[in-house]
Amino acid sequence: MSHDPPPRQRALAAWFPILDWGPRYTRALASADMVAAAVVTLMLIPQSLAYALLAGMPPETGLYASMLPLLAYALMGSSSALAVGPAAVTSLMTAAALGPLVAAGTVGHVAAGSLLALMSGAMLLAMGALRLGFLASFLSHPVLSGFVSASGVLIAASQLKHLLGVPLQGQTLPEILPSLWQHGAGWHGPTVAIGAGTVLFLWWVRRSLKGLLRAQGVSPFVADVLTKAAPVLALAATTLLAWSLSLEAQGLKVVGPVPGGLPPLALPPFDAAGLSALGPLASAALLISLVGFVESVSVGQSLAAKRRERIEPDAELRALGASNLAAGFSGGFPVTGGFSRSVVNFDAGARTLAAGVFTAIGLLVAALLLTPALHHLPQATLAATIVVAVLSLVDLGAFGRTWRYARDDFAALVLTFSLTLLMGVEAGLMAGVGASLLFHLWRTSRPHIATVGQVPGTAHYRNVLRHEVITQPTILSLRVDESLYFANARFLEDHVAAQVAAHPAIEHVVLQCAAVNAIDSSALESLEAITHRLADAGVMLHLSEIKGPVMDRLQRSDFLQQLTGRVFLSHHEAVQALAVQTAPANPGAP
Amino acid sequence: MSHDPPPRQRALAAWFPILDWGPRYTRALASADMVAAAVVTLMLIPQSLAYALLAGMPPETGLYASMLPLLAYALMGSSSALAVGPAAVTSLMTAAALGPLVAAGTVGHVAAGSLLALMSGAMLLAMGALRLGFLASFLSHPVLSGFVSASGVLIAASQLKHLLGVPLQGQTLPEILPSLWQHGAGWHGPTVAIGAGTVLFLWWVRRSLKGLLRAQGVSPFVADVLTKAAPVLALAATTLLAWSLSLEAQGLKVVGPVPGGLPPLALPPFDAAGLSALGPLASAALLISLVGFVESVSVGQSLAAKRRERIEPDAELRALGASNLAAGFSGGFPVTGGFSRSVVNFDAGARTLAAGVFTAIGLLVAALLLTPALHHLPQATLAATIVVAVLSLVDLGAFGRTWRYARDDFAALVLTFSLTLLMGVEAGLMAGVGASLLFHLWRTSRPHIATVGQVPGTAHYRNVLRHEVITQPTILSLRVDESLYFANARFLEDHVAAQVAAHPAIEHVVLQCAAVNAIDSSALESLEAITHRLADAGVMLHLSEIKGPVMDRLQRSDFLQQLTGRVFLSHHEAVQALAVQTAPANPGAP
Repeated sequence: MSHDPPPRQRALAAWFPILDWGPRYTRALASADMVAAAVVTLMLIPQSLAYALLAGMPPETGLYASMLPLLAYALMGSSSALAVGPAAVTSLMTAAALGPLVAAGTVGHVAAGSLLALMSGAMLLAMGALRLGFLASFLSHPVLSGFVSASGVLIAASQLKHLLGVPLQGQTLPEILPSLWQHGAGWHGPTVAIGAGTVLFLWWVRRSLKGLLRAQGVSPFVADVLTKAAPVLALAATTLLAWSLSLEAQGLKVVGPVPGGLPPLALPPFDAAGLSALGPLASAALLISLVGFVESVSVGQSLAAKRRERIEPDAELRALGASNLAAGFSGGFPVTGGFSRSVVNFDAGARTLAAGVFTAIGLLVAALLLTPALHHLPQATLAATIVVAVLSLVDLGAFGRTWRYARDDFAALVLTFSLTLLMGVEAGLMAGVGASLLFHLWRTSRPHIATVGQVPGTAHYRNVLRHEVITQPTILSLRVDESLYFANARFLEDHVAAQVAAHPAIEHVVLQCAAVNAIDSSALESLEAITHRLADAGVMLHLSEIKGPVMDRLQRSDFLQQLTGRVFLSHHEAVQALAVQTAPANPGAP
Repeated sequence: MSHDPPPRQRALAAWFPILDWGPRYTRALASADMVAAAVVTLMLIPQSLAYALLAGMPPETGLYASMLPLLAYALMGSSSALAVGPAAVTSLMTAAALGPLVAAGTVGHVAAGSLLALMSGAMLLAMGALRLGFLASFLSHPVLSGFVSASGVLIAASQLKHLLGVPLQGQTLPEILPSLWQHGAGWHGPTVAIGAGTVLFLWWVRRSLKGLLRAQGVSPFVADVLTKAAPVLALAATTLLAWSLSLEAQGLKVVGPVPGGLPPLALPPFDAAGLSALGPLASAALLISLVGFVESVSVGQSLAAKRRERIEPDAELRALGASNLAAGFSGGFPVTGGFSRSVVNFDAGARTLAAGVFTAIGLLVAALLLTPALHHLPQATLAATIVVAVLSLVDLGAFGRTWRYARDDFAALVLTFSLTLLMGVEAGLMAGVGASLLFHLWRTSRPHIATVGQVPGTAHYRNVLRHEVITQPTILSLRVDESLYFANARFLEDHVAAQVAAHPAIEHVVLQCAAVNAIDSSALESLEAITHRLADAGVMLHLSEIKGPVMDRLQRSDFLQQLTGRVFLSHHEAVQALAVQTAPANPGAP
């Protein structure tokens, strides 16, 4: 009943949904959000550090990338439960993009990571402003599935060096595996013990702890929080172990000194090196943007549906763009709406995006207070949390399901999966996108074109191969069952040429266009070529049942002037007119 | 009435159409073919030399590329009038591909040209064997049109150095134009005189000579032959001029010593340099193959239609592949079915591909006898024949026509045209292909989805926006008007989510799938996501009117087990069943 706000205010609220829900924020919502934020913070401390390790960035940047981006998303996001921050696949892609450019761990690496986040943010923001969300459609499901599975394997393989304490090189299996073989004898005992112990502990927690606690009569919520807190426990226990036994002196790699305090607020240095990195990073930034957007939107849509809400893909693009810009400005690296953190946030009862703000505050406190304690945290512990987390990414069942459902999709899946493992994330993803497009063009390059005839006694026309119908020897009636565009236009040329060459009696070709929703410039050119070629062969081309919008557009070209025949409203009308015309010697025939 | 040949023989005849027409060859056909061959030979001598110059190859390689390829095409081609050899656009693409690799004129350049022909031949042959002709569909009409127009401009610009006698550098306008400016004062008088004189003469011949001769009572055929022979006359006259005035001593660039005799029959040297060139040449070879195939097929189809014949695209791919292999083995460079030579061949009365064999013999005689005479041929004359020939490639009218017809096609045209001029043939073509695909995905990413309701008193359902129909508050009926695939699957997810969020009373969503011809893996995943999200919102998903093949495929997945609702044969049945089910409290209502 209330008046709508004026347009400018509505436009502002479309860009900043917080203007919508912010004024309606209540104390009850706030307490729900704070509880969720506490649970998420507990989970994010180890996860942020681990994903920074995976991205090849210093550990504190993982915390940075989980603070300001959450604030930016709270202002602009349209999903009430999404939590943005570093995620497994985008962190792997970050490592792959930066790897060839800079030696891991140097200051140049951090600057390049921030630069990548800024580029990705600018791209996402631009896509959102220009409503280019459809670009994510390029990533078909088989390609994404193969890519994510392969990423899971690559991530696990990349952590072997931290779990085994050997200096493995490379980012693809053909690089990592020989390196593993080479260092086969050099495993570092304490590292392996801590790594394997943590993996086993986390695996047991994931499989059994919640059930055990519930069986002991613990409430579901507390059981859930304790399960979520297990990685923190592993962190604390292994840190204590490393510190008390002085394992660092025995060669155990630990996180080392971590600068505490607030994230730096600064642009990465735009010197000559920074500018020269823009080119090589551009394709990586685009792919990270698309993959991050797809992950974020599918998590967001799933969670929104549970509350019968919806998210706005263009708003999500803009919000993710702002989040990545925030990550880039505060010493972070590319972020996205992560699956696990968003689900935990939702399950813990987050009601609005204010939960993200509280989470950011929690992480800030952690960054201020806990960083000295991180010094003795073994890298093997972080690697173990990554490995346990990413194994769920590998979906081997998808191979069988896709094989049964569609062979070309299966080919795209296998191609993406194997090329990602063998040649890296960028090559795998690009090849998969290329293959999807190829298969799509191939499928649509042969539109269904039926030769039709009259159902006796009616004005209906049906496929001559399926029905008993009447045809005229001098008229070829073709029903085109698809829109005509560049990928199938030449097929129509070939088809008409073959039919006319095979039936020398034909004097008229009538294309029944009832199912043609569009004709692009290439198809128009083909129609013109068909007209002229038929004219050279002494055959006239006619059209029937053209849809209104298609006809409007044809009238903007000079095709209708070139057309040797006529345009008929109904196919029956065409056949009647042409049959009479071409059989004048036998006017008495039925 | 005769028996069909056994399958093996039929398969052989599909690969070698000469087995079909060869045995039926007669003396009458032979004399027609010989006359045509004589006219074409006359025309090809200057054209072959000129295109070799354009490709940056020695002049004799132009003759080589017009001999063996014609024999190969005669064995395998399916068009009776097509004449293969060097063509303008593919020669420009050859020059662009080889330019960065080798300095023009060295032996390495010749070897690289042959290597490019071999690679292109192998690709075409493979595409023909695998029936991948649809790949040419990637080159939409606006992209080809923009590309060919820009190529015409680039070719003319590239010949300025020969016409003006200044050493211009580069292969794109931003490279050539500043170079032209720099040498603005250094034009070479005799070169400019010969170049401009030849251009004006050829232009006059093209515009007026035939009409003049006909007005003098010369027979059409003789007038035509004389017009075609004019470039030969220009060659002879300027060669004589250069020789008699010793213009070479004054700085006029002439062709110089040309090795006479048969083309060399050898593979290009496959040393380390040759092997390392394979990678960089691969994308150029693919683009040359596709562009050459498209030019060849459209010329072939146009000429075949005039005789009510047809050509077989897969046979054309194989024949062009064999022709390019022949060019590569005999010291030539990439060839295709050229427009001008094929039209001349057809107009001069060629009846079969034997005309190509006779043309090859004619060129062989020319190579044996005429090469000494070519020494003093000015390069400016050849450049003039190129410039006059390629200006017809520039189709400025296409810009206006495409603008009026379709704005997105116009954008692709302008993008291809300008990037080809500014960044070169390969970048322009690739950007155009990318843009076409993007626009296509964008257009199809938003399928038409109508909310439908019952036409009162019938079992028909129509769009609620266009018709007075009855809807049920608890049932959302959506008619999907397109096949579902990766580019539009997410749109369906968004659309359903938005509708359900907007109408809280909805308990059932029914998708009417009568127009859905296919559902790929990505769309299946979206349907599964929709099912689960609707279930989370307390809404059931049903399907109606699924086509047989689509249903068969769905049964190979476990989607139908996941489906919360039912599959109905007709939409009316669905609405009746669900309306009763959801309104049990009011069973007496109509």
